[in-house]
Amino acid sequence: MSHGVAHAGALELCIDELHRLLPGRVSTAMAVRMHHGTDVSFHAPHPPDAVVFPHGTDEVSGVAACCARHGVPMIPFGTGTSCEGHIAALHGGVCIDLSEMREILRVGVEDLDVTVQAGVTRKQLNEHLRDTGLFFPIDPGADASLGGMTVTRASGTNAVRYGTMRENVLGLTVVLADGRVIRTGGRARKSAAGYDLTRLFVGSEGTLGIVTEVTLRLYGIPEAISAAVCPFPTLAGAVDTAIAVIQAQIPVARMELLDELQMRATNLYSRLDHPVLPTLFFEFHGSEAAVAEQVAAVQAIAADNGETDFRWASKPEERTRLWQARHDAWWAALALRPGAKGWPTDVCVPISRLAECIAGTRRDIDEAGLLAPILGHVGDGNFHLCYILDPDDPDEMARVRSVNARMIARALAMGGTCTGEHGIGYGKLDELRAEHGDAVDVMAAIKRALDPRALMNPGKVVGRLS
Amino acid sequence: MSHGVAHAGALELCIDELHRLLPGRVSTAMAVRMHHGTDVSFHAPHPPDAVVFPHGTDEVSGVAACCARHGVPMIPFGTGTSCEGHIAALHGGVCIDLSEMREILRVGVEDLDVTVQAGVTRKQLNEHLRDTGLFFPIDPGADASLGGMTVTRASGTNAVRYGTMRENVLGLTVVLADGRVIRTGGRARKSAAGYDLTRLFVGSEGTLGIVTEVTLRLYGIPEAISAAVCPFPTLAGAVDTAIAVIQAQIPVARMELLDELQMRATNLYSRLDHPVLPTLFFEFHGSEAAVAEQVAAVQAIAADNGETDFRWASKPEERTRLWQARHDAWWAALALRPGAKGWPTDVCVPISRLAECIAGTRRDIDEAGLLAPILGHVGDGNFHLCYILDPDDPDEMARVRSVNARMIARALAMGGTCTGEHGIGYGKLDELRAEHGDAVDVMAAIKRALDPRALMNPGKVVGRLS
Repeated sequence: MSHGVAHAGALELCIDELHRLLPGRVSTAMAVRMHHGTDVSFHAPHPPDAVVFPHGTDEVSGVAACCARHGVPMIPFGTGTSCEGHIAALHGGVCIDLSEMREILRVGVEDLDVTVQAGVTRKQLNEHLRDTGLFFPIDPGADASLGGMTVTRASGTNAVRYGTMRENVLGLTVVLADGRVIRTGGRARKSAAGYDLTRLFVGSEGTLGIVTEVTLRLYGIPEAISAAVCPFPTLAGAVDTAIAVIQAQIPVARMELLDELQMRATNLYSRLDHPVLPTLFFEFHGSEAAVAEQVAAVQAIAADNGETDFRWASKPEERTRLWQARHDAWWAALALRPGAKGWPTDVCVPISRLAECIAGTRRDIDEAGLLAPILGHVGDGNFHLCYILDPDDPDEMARVRSVNARMIARALAMGGTCTGEHGIGYGKLDELRAEHGDAVDVMAAIKRALDPRALMNPGKVVGRLS
Repeated sequence: MSHGVAHAGALELCIDELHRLLPGRVSTAMAVRMHHGTDVSFHAPHPPDAVVFPHGTDEVSGVAACCARHGVPMIPFGTGTSCEGHIAALHGGVCIDLSEMREILRVGVEDLDVTVQAGVTRKQLNEHLRDTGLFFPIDPGADASLGGMTVTRASGTNAVRYGTMRENVLGLTVVLADGRVIRTGGRARKSAAGYDLTRLFVGSEGTLGIVTEVTLRLYGIPEAISAAVCPFPTLAGAVDTAIAVIQAQIPVARMELLDELQMRATNLYSRLDHPVLPTLFFEFHGSEAAVAEQVAAVQAIAADNGETDFRWASKPEERTRLWQARHDAWWAALALRPGAKGWPTDVCVPISRLAECIAGTRRDIDEAGLLAPILGHVGDGNFHLCYILDPDDPDEMARVRSVNARMIARALAMGGTCTGEHGIGYGKLDELRAEHGDAVDVMAAIKRALDPRALMNPGKVVGRLS
């Protein structure tokens, strides 16, 4: 048997066995399979052969052991909101949909931590926490599952202050390729006990094991929160402001760039009336005094860079509307060209190179005559492009590929990374090699050690191992 | 050939070759070998067969390739200040002393980062940074090398505010078991590109590869710094204060506990005159206003817990004296019983269980009639015991082992870890298994994948693989 592809007979036996294991929770209906093989990007769908809906770690372990016995690939699935084909069943197999594992297992108010099943979404968690005075800050655009956010090493608008999933996952329960269950990390805030398996599984995109439970850090809801929208006459003015804020180490909670095109899209889609100019969205967290101090420092920097008007959103409902609009930026961009598909991508560079990286990218887009708003988590040195394109137009696709390749090469030449938060999936395999060189061989060696038959989400991160 | 032990003939050939590779920088003198086989703890020395002093990554790569060809174990060495036998040449072999790799390769003032060779020590780095307004916060007791701090996942007094090496290493250059060189991570503040090899090598104790260069985050020296010493009538009062400060999320920069016995030792050794009472040492960082806010909040909590007297150390030289005394706690404790050896150990628990864990440990020590001050980084839920003992007294050693086993079992039962910052070495192999169970098998699988002949610091972390 070649790695990662099941014989037809083995697949049939496997699915039969899964029906006995999870009666009523196995589907081979084409609509269900298609849904589970399709992500939010332009990547072509790759439906799995079957979809199962386990309710706990033991059931996931049973499913994995069954797939392993029959040599059938397994693809874990959260909410399907990844961007680089992470969930595509490239070699068929069983999709393990964790969305019915939505139990919040334990809230540790005294220790500022929580343990959840992998299918709990970030909004569900924060809803649940509301009365405790605590919150979980990491917020990718979608209402993603916390398991999915863990294995894509997600971040979002708050990462500039609170870090990414890398910093906020304390421990995991993981089902291995043969069905064994391990626990990594723990509830202590630090540990020097052995290899950091937690961080190894964070960002592993389902290729090393299936994360079924996650222990996360929580934070107290700040005493004071203040948000503002700040337009600039030039893109450079906005980016230079962001850079100066970071270099001055002002602990802003959020600092998001939306370029002119994205502001036009967002005004239209979210029915707002902001000036159509390159804009920074800010949020400040802290005590009243700390927030006042941060605001004064940021306003002084923005004024130096030509800002025209700080508009405050002080009421909670105004803030919610503002950040909802930011989170809907992707849908707003898509609405600019009805019927088109989106190709979202991101890079991240050292903060000192951000202005140059964004300016070069903007120039390339314009010269290629493409429609592609720039937006992003500029405090991290991270920004997104969303190419709004017609995948059936080969000329347009060629121009997109060329601009994209130049952007990634530029970011890597600056000491940056080919993806700040979207991950590799199968969309950025070559870019991973360009960034990490021989270190990818070490990743592949680890993959082989943990999944010798290449059954765990095959074809992703390290590609298809032979 | 059995794993991890070279034939005598192979060893001779290997050392001959190393002499040609690094002329004048290979020693087989017994004094040099003994020094390199001895750590600061009570663990028996295990001298290597030879010690080499490379000056760069290429030379380390050459040494590793040579050792690999001859099947000779290699043990990387920084400053020899680890506590769990990390540097012991349990199976002989070549000690690779990185202390002559002391070059600071690049300071990125605009990006708040730095790249150093592995032998640069933390004090050397901060001395070098002095005129930039930046500093590197992680400070284990010793003036350890940054390579050694990386591979033991070190922390120290500032971790409560700035995190540990886990959070502060951005990227690494690593020489693998066969001499190949890889680079992990990068200079971007976040990345979703592939497995997190950086975090895998952080804390790997030289068992997966040899770290030769480290890229680290830096921080701006705060506008205001204030330090205080605060004695309490009871140990519980001090610990409860620490817990409440963390639960209130006051961003103290340092919060260190020294129990009554440690205060007696520290007063004697560092010629101070603090009350001989359980005491917290604090440091506050921030703007003037932020520090004032933090101080007021902490004082209110301390007063609730019976503190008797906040003594301020505002001048830089007073603060230096205070923290030097804290860093010398280990030597102060040893001086309590001239001629004795020290067995330093540490555990870390969720903050809500810290009071119970410390009280139970103190009771056990007293009931067993042992001499063992408690001190630690209580803001992290982490504390140290230092047993001051006579390793030649079997009865005393049995009592120490019993108290220690109870402390670790207690910490694990509370969801904690068997070591917050000292690591596993070969001193805590059983404790690692008790804490992580089958996950240790996954660690061993990774070890085999990266070091199939078990030549990299054999016998540590995952034990001696067969």
